[in-house]
Amino acid sequence: MGKQGKAKRGIPSKSDFNLWYPAIVEIADLVDKRYPIKGMDVWKPYGLRTMRLIDGLTRQEMASTGHEEYNFPLLVPEDLLDKENKLVSRLKAARELGIDPSELRLEEEESGFSKEVYWVTKGGDNELEKPMFLRPTSETPMYTMFSLWVRNHADLPLKTFQIVNTFRYETKQTRSFIRVREIHFFEAHTVHKNEAGATRQIEEDAKIVQRLMHDLCIPVLISKRPVWDTFPGAWYSTAVDAVMPNGRTLQIATYHHYRDQWAEAFNLNYEDSDGKTQNCHQTTFGMSERLLGAIVGMHGDDAGLILPPSVAPHQVILMPIAAHIDQKVSVTVDKLAEELRNNGIRVFVDHRDLRPGTKHYDWEIKGAPIRLELGPRDLVSNQCVLTLRTGGKVEVSLDSISETINSKLDNISKTLRERAGIHQKELIQQLPDLKETDTGWVIDGVIDEGMVYEFPFDGNDADAEIIEKITGLTLLGDCQPCYSEEVPCIITGKLTTRKQHIARMY
Amino acid sequence: MGKQGKAKRGIPSKSDFNLWYPAIVEIADLVDKRYPIKGMDVWKPYGLRTMRLIDGLTRQEMASTGHEEYNFPLLVPEDLLDKENKLVSRLKAARELGIDPSELRLEEEESGFSKEVYWVTKGGDNELEKPMFLRPTSETPMYTMFSLWVRNHADLPLKTFQIVNTFRYETKQTRSFIRVREIHFFEAHTVHKNEAGATRQIEEDAKIVQRLMHDLCIPVLISKRPVWDTFPGAWYSTAVDAVMPNGRTLQIATYHHYRDQWAEAFNLNYEDSDGKTQNCHQTTFGMSERLLGAIVGMHGDDAGLILPPSVAPHQVILMPIAAHIDQKVSVTVDKLAEELRNNGIRVFVDHRDLRPGTKHYDWEIKGAPIRLELGPRDLVSNQCVLTLRTGGKVEVSLDSISETINSKLDNISKTLRERAGIHQKELIQQLPDLKETDTGWVIDGVIDEGMVYEFPFDGNDADAEIIEKITGLTLLGDCQPCYSEEVPCIITGKLTTRKQHIARMY
Repeated sequence: MGKQGKAKRGIPSKSDFNLWYPAIVEIADLVDKRYPIKGMDVWKPYGLRTMRLIDGLTRQEMASTGHEEYNFPLLVPEDLLDKENKLVSRLKAARELGIDPSELRLEEEESGFSKEVYWVTKGGDNELEKPMFLRPTSETPMYTMFSLWVRNHADLPLKTFQIVNTFRYETKQTRSFIRVREIHFFEAHTVHKNEAGATRQIEEDAKIVQRLMHDLCIPVLISKRPVWDTFPGAWYSTAVDAVMPNGRTLQIATYHHYRDQWAEAFNLNYEDSDGKTQNCHQTTFGMSERLLGAIVGMHGDDAGLILPPSVAPHQVILMPIAAHIDQKVSVTVDKLAEELRNNGIRVFVDHRDLRPGTKHYDWEIKGAPIRLELGPRDLVSNQCVLTLRTGGKVEVSLDSISETINSKLDNISKTLRERAGIHQKELIQQLPDLKETDTGWVIDGVIDEGMVYEFPFDGNDADAEIIEKITGLTLLGDCQPCYSEEVPCIITGKLTTRKQHIARMY
Repeated sequence: MGKQGKAKRGIPSKSDFNLWYPAIVEIADLVDKRYPIKGMDVWKPYGLRTMRLIDGLTRQEMASTGHEEYNFPLLVPEDLLDKENKLVSRLKAARELGIDPSELRLEEEESGFSKEVYWVTKGGDNELEKPMFLRPTSETPMYTMFSLWVRNHADLPLKTFQIVNTFRYETKQTRSFIRVREIHFFEAHTVHKNEAGATRQIEEDAKIVQRLMHDLCIPVLISKRPVWDTFPGAWYSTAVDAVMPNGRTLQIATYHHYRDQWAEAFNLNYEDSDGKTQNCHQTTFGMSERLLGAIVGMHGDDAGLILPPSVAPHQVILMPIAAHIDQKVSVTVDKLAEELRNNGIRVFVDHRDLRPGTKHYDWEIKGAPIRLELGPRDLVSNQCVLTLRTGGKVEVSLDSISETINSKLDNISKTLRERAGIHQKELIQQLPDLKETDTGWVIDGVIDEGMVYEFPFDGNDADAEIIEKITGLTLLGDCQPCYSEEVPCIITGKLTTRKQHIARMY
């Protein structure tokens, strides 16, 4: 049966992740990729609901940390981008010269996002006087307004966020949720009195990410990105990467400390309590539909998705069995559904006129955490059959069923966290030793592109380049936390606690 | 005090509605209009929350009527618009010739939305091979996908909706919520087996609108739009208009019966139970942030907004009085807030260190339905002072406070409905008689542009044109319901039950 069952569902084996992933997002009815623009998928109801539940967790975090939700316009006038580009050019040049950005004076130069954006040049039949672009992210439109809102120290901190779609003119291969051209995006932007305030915000962001990843059951690597991979305009960038089953890392969150680097370009300053004008310090924190991509990729199996209970649109599927034989079945199932709903559990009652086997397949593919079957005999014995999507089937009493379900949902989350944690560990190994020879550096082993490598590193940029070149992989940056004890750097041999990862990145 | 108080708030008198409206949307902190693109406002937290609550009511209606939520891409390739334009041209030409659209063959012709859309022509530095436009509404992107989804009679009805931003290249004067270039938009699109199915959907839409307008306390005029004002591609369009205080009507919802007019252009057909191919019939139903515009305009007063309890972000403002004198005040207020929240009431506790008068002004401007003050003396007497935003102040017991609040919120809704209903009646009057003279038609009275006129009408298009020309106003269409008894048509004198309105439209 096994083979035929799988063929019927049309799901490739997950061992071939690059085949499995693009197939499952459509088979599980998350998106439809047949829209005539590549990289712009149609969100189907099941996918949209899951994403909204992820957004819901994010909104809860924002509310409990005092962020307020805004919506800024999608279109940005070209001249605002010029501001950003000038700033980014200056920071880049300063970094290359190893000097403070304020010491520089540069002519306008195109850089930053301008190569990646979609341009609106016409309205109706008219060429627009001022071209506009679709936001790739919202520093520019937001900071333009912030400079109107922030006057006085009492206006700070200003903690804002929005959940909107952003756009990137992607030229690389697109993949649902992972690399798309219309991106379901979350971005928090904050303004502070000083560097310390912004630093505290970065610490808060780190805790928010930690709580969210716990809810989504996703183990991650957290790294301070290397200087050359820092977000344009940022003082430093911290990135959160998930290790996908094919060993590629997926950046699913970033938070950036901007210091006061944007203050001048956007006229962002305030009057302190002594009446003196001070530059504002800023941070941003971004996440996207990649969170859903990570959930799909990390938790699913050969039979379909497995959704963490925190974001499963239906945490429990109630399946009436032989309801046509005994009318009491449907009545009991509906009563049960109501009881569970009253206890805050998301329930779907599958009254469809289909064989139970077909329903099982369906909900297995869609990754519903728990299925409950209830037939005429169960009514008599006051119990039902509970199946966990992570494996296992038990008979449970209908008494205190909500408590039972909640405890099983917790078990599922734990199982997912454990499995994903083990899987991540299996995908990370020590980088083989490097040796310098007469013809350059060589590696003492074979690099597997499907793996992430860890190593102690305290070298300079040139040393980092050697490692990237020799492995063909990309450095993730300084891992947080670092080693608990000092170990010798893989290049310099100097003792260090700095831990680095190198991987193929999405 | 009166004058000074008003000056302090900076709110113009509502008697000058055209001054009051644009001022209040910013003073009440709903939007910021200073974004550098005209007609693209920044949604501030209070405005966004209110709009989200309106969306929430809409989503509830969609869920209870079996519509499912999707998200379609924002960008539409040019060639899809060509399809729509051809269709619209054919329907328009057929209408002008008074023949069935299927009898016509037309060359491609530009029309429909193409003059109103924003065009994306570049990605980065590259000219796009195929220009794309920002959706003004989603028939084109949706129907392209529907034709892939609908195969068989079992796939029908297909009931979809989305809440997304749409874009119009507006050349007219923009006004917050009323005429903007980036529009917070709701659109439901349905596909049916036959005309009757689509007609039932239109009836369902009418009921949904009725329930929503009840919740928002907005009296409306419902009219089947004249043929020349029918939505491009529709068989007929029904529009829902609110009468704003300046007598201008604001179209806040429309539903369109498309019959099977789109079926051929978009290849939308299905196999019926006899294996025969049949054309699909369709409807759409649209609403937008204009709902918020209507709420602001109809319910507000000289002191600010008045938000209907159904969509007020904070239904109750709790104000601790003299909390610095008696610490028990804050404790009791917080406990009270929790009790109210547990009963599903949206509460904001105003712990700000401001004078009570200042807080009162603030929440008056923002239109919070109820304010509760609680001070040291109230603790002793186990009561508090309740102020209604619609007027009136009473002392109420803290026992069963949730019931009291819910009943007061209901009273506020009733008051708003009554006031708006009376106001609407005052703004609608009988159209003065029309007489035909040697020099043409004349009107027996003066037309006030700040009024809506009602009259029995059973004439033809030419007659309608006479009325529009002589009054300088626009016909809303056949009113639903019509007169209960036959009355003579204002032009032809023929007895009719058809009721029409004519007004200045937004």
